[in-house]
Amino acid sequence: MKKIINQPADVVTEMVSGLTRAYPDLIKRLDGTNVLVKADNTSQVQLISGGGSGHEPSHAGFIGDGMLSAAVCGEVFTSPTPDQIYEAAKAVDTGDGVFFIIKNYSGDVMNFDMAKDMAEMENIQVDFVIVDDDIAVENSTYTQGKRGVAGTVLVHKILGNLARSGADLATIKQAADQLVAEINTIAVALSGATVPEVGKPGFVLPEDEIEYGVGIHGEPGYRREKMLPSKDLAKELVDKLISSFDGDTTSEYAILVNGMGATPLMEQFIFTNDVMHLLDDQAVKVAYTKVGNFMTSIDMAGISLTMLRLSDAAWLDALNADVRTIAWG
Amino acid sequence: MKKIINQPADVVTEMVSGLTRAYPDLIKRLDGTNVLVKADNTSQVQLISGGGSGHEPSHAGFIGDGMLSAAVCGEVFTSPTPDQIYEAAKAVDTGDGVFFIIKNYSGDVMNFDMAKDMAEMENIQVDFVIVDDDIAVENSTYTQGKRGVAGTVLVHKILGNLARSGADLATIKQAADQLVAEINTIAVALSGATVPEVGKPGFVLPEDEIEYGVGIHGEPGYRREKMLPSKDLAKELVDKLISSFDGDTTSEYAILVNGMGATPLMEQFIFTNDVMHLLDDQAVKVAYTKVGNFMTSIDMAGISLTMLRLSDAAWLDALNADVRTIAWG
Repeated sequence: MKKIINQPADVVTEMVSGLTRAYPDLIKRLDGTNVLVKADNTSQVQLISGGGSGHEPSHAGFIGDGMLSAAVCGEVFTSPTPDQIYEAAKAVDTGDGVFFIIKNYSGDVMNFDMAKDMAEMENIQVDFVIVDDDIAVENSTYTQGKRGVAGTVLVHKILGNLARSGADLATIKQAADQLVAEINTIAVALSGATVPEVGKPGFVLPEDEIEYGVGIHGEPGYRREKMLPSKDLAKELVDKLISSFDGDTTSEYAILVNGMGATPLMEQFIFTNDVMHLLDDQAVKVAYTKVGNFMTSIDMAGISLTMLRLSDAAWLDALNADVRTIAWG
Repeated sequence: MKKIINQPADVVTEMVSGLTRAYPDLIKRLDGTNVLVKADNTSQVQLISGGGSGHEPSHAGFIGDGMLSAAVCGEVFTSPTPDQIYEAAKAVDTGDGVFFIIKNYSGDVMNFDMAKDMAEMENIQVDFVIVDDDIAVENSTYTQGKRGVAGTVLVHKILGNLARSGADLATIKQAADQLVAEINTIAVALSGATVPEVGKPGFVLPEDEIEYGVGIHGEPGYRREKMLPSKDLAKELVDKLISSFDGDTTSEYAILVNGMGATPLMEQFIFTNDVMHLLDDQAVKVAYTKVGNFMTSIDMAGISLTMLRLSDAAWLDALNADVRTIAWG
């Protein structure tokens, strides 16, 4: 393992310090925690997300006006504790309530739920949504049901815009449920990720093999095969996604191409080009596209493709709305 | 070589297509070229940069209001041709002149110079600056003098803001010369980069070794040694940089921490944390920080550190000014 770190046990604490030192105008750390909150808070429903670390820029990179109010950083690939989530809620609530955006992993779901109870005992209103956009497999290593992956970032952006506009907690909950039902993601991995405290990759792929459907913690996918050209990888993922929308090629979609950490942007844009051609072939209208590293898996090489069916016109406006964050350009 | 590409010979053309398809509201491609220009142009001095591909998001990711008007994408690690640069100048000039931001590589310098002659024959005013911020070595594989690396992105941002404000070509030239003299960068590599048409890394480092001072095309650095903790890597680079400013620890600086393509943000923020502590130790004031992948070397693992001495107060405002681009958040 060759990584730019100090002690493996300190990676999250030091990363959070680095984030705070780099962007003090955007974020601040709650003392004694790995919770990051907006530097300047305003009165609105406050969105809180988080989970295990190792997915940077998720989630701290999306703190800012029009997106998240707080991100709770667990240890690497480990759910944050309920008390850290509760501290986040207490710190940012302005009396308008807080809304949790939770990726569907058993530990996250349990700990956010406990934090909800703790916050409600302090008269903080809490609601939440569980994002389960990964269509690759049902149930997985850390998940009952589908996993939550890169599509979560679109949820941050769209609900963030809604919360900024002054929507109340019930309105946000309703929009969240509609939105999550319209987001599907699938990935392909070229290599495994190395958790610093483990010191070796979670799985190893031969030099000429890939695996479809791998999760953001290296959870098993659905098929290994020989490496293929980008356009064939794109076809596999696009076909699976279109099927997940019951073959609906007449709606408008937003597209998120997400690098897993070690995949150069060059490859991400070549893959995007192939995806766009495949969608052209089926006359699918793409109203919005974003490409880059948003929900990574440490140093995994690979890529995920997310499609969001734009069944509400407000979502496209929300995606295009200006925000000031570290990682949403 | 396991890369998400189709034919190695097509990577740049397909990447440029992908960029254009993903962000049609920001950029458009000049037909039959790998030149990308702003989707909507306005009357001002137009900044043009570019160079070999493989450094994404540089340079196309910085096209937009307040930064570049055009980016000329050469083949991977290969200078763009003079006629492509000339086409860029012709396409974006609004009669106010164009300004070339050139990284100091012999091929780039020669080809941008030829493009300048071609443009001037068509009565387009041209001026330019050569960025040579890499303090690691004097002269290098493709360079007379110092290499141009990640600090170039700060030049895009600061001159971009100046050009947007309506400054004329002579004013921009003067600011550019002052600015480039105040930017120094140095890198450390953990692995080499693989050019798709070559199919294997440009150099190989043993699993327990790093190399200081490597260039963005894998040009040799100044020392190999055993892998060290992040704080030791940071100390080596910070010390070299402070020396490059003749030990000036009383001025204010801007800091750019740049991932080389395969380095996770987690590591970049841990390294940033170490850099900040070292600068604290010397009471160096940091007025601005930015962390991420800005000037990469395909899939190289490694990091560079840039310090800009803020000897003109306008530069800090320019760094903080809002822009709308693919890659400057």
